[in-house]
Amino acid sequence: MEDCVFCRIAAEEISSYKVYEDDKIKAFLDILPISPGHTIVIPKEHAADVEDLTDEALCAMTIAMKKIGKAMMEGLGVKGYSIFLDNKDAANQHVAHAHFHVVPRKEGDGLGRWPQGGYEEGEAEDTLKKLTAKL
Amino acid sequence: MEDCVFCRIAAEEISSYKVYEDDKIKAFLDILPISPGHTIVIPKEHAADVEDLTDEALCAMTIAMKKIGKAMMEGLGVKGYSIFLDNKDAANQHVAHAHFHVVPRKEGDGLGRWPQGGYEEGEAEDTLKKLTAKL
Repeated sequence: MEDCVFCRIAAEEISSYKVYEDDKIKAFLDILPISPGHTIVIPKEHAADVEDLTDEALCAMTIAMKKIGKAMMEGLGVKGYSIFLDNKDAANQHVAHAHFHVVPRKEGDGLGRWPQGGYEEGEAEDTLKKLTAKL
Repeated sequence: MEDCVFCRIAAEEISSYKVYEDDKIKAFLDILPISPGHTIVIPKEHAADVEDLTDEALCAMTIAMKKIGKAMMEGLGVKGYSIFLDNKDAANQHVAHAHFHVVPRKEGDGLGRWPQGGYEEGEAEDTLKKLTAKL
């Protein structure tokens, strides 16, 4: 898409620090990294969000992340990594071209989990019913 | 694996709020949810971490998350979701059976991003070189 920054990176109209590519995906360094090596993985074909992604693109992105994560551990002196994807505005998706983040992790890096709560009596059952009704 | 809580959930030796399953994966509610409907997606076959996962299992997990995320938006009154996976101890992986989290999201839910930094002069190039050397 003409106005999409990630499409322009995929097409190499905008330069990037390219980490990896294959016929379906491209991966490049986030220039505002959470940690050094933080990589963004995108489908080459525009897809605004996960709902727009084909299963083939999703698989290609995930398989690429496995390779990239391994390379992070082998090349960057880290012992793990986190993957995340925020889908749609409500989740703070910042660029409307679906993308995963792969973030190198070190013990004690201070990158905490979101706080977890609990369910009230019957709430889990009710939530499950609403969710599985749509599956 | 005998001592693995997620293997025992997959085998239904431990009960769970089952969201979805197919021949390769199982998905169930996290009972300490970040938000109601927070779902954990696991391969049925034990894999300690991403490095242990087959491409087939990875694809099955990702395709399942697309379905589950859509069901969250249709069934739970949310407008988006986040996906994450923490790989290995350094990333605070809490259960040594690879798993993705799918978390329903609402605008203003207060679930923030990890802080982002920058690269010093030459650091991005150096990081890229170390990373791509292993790919």
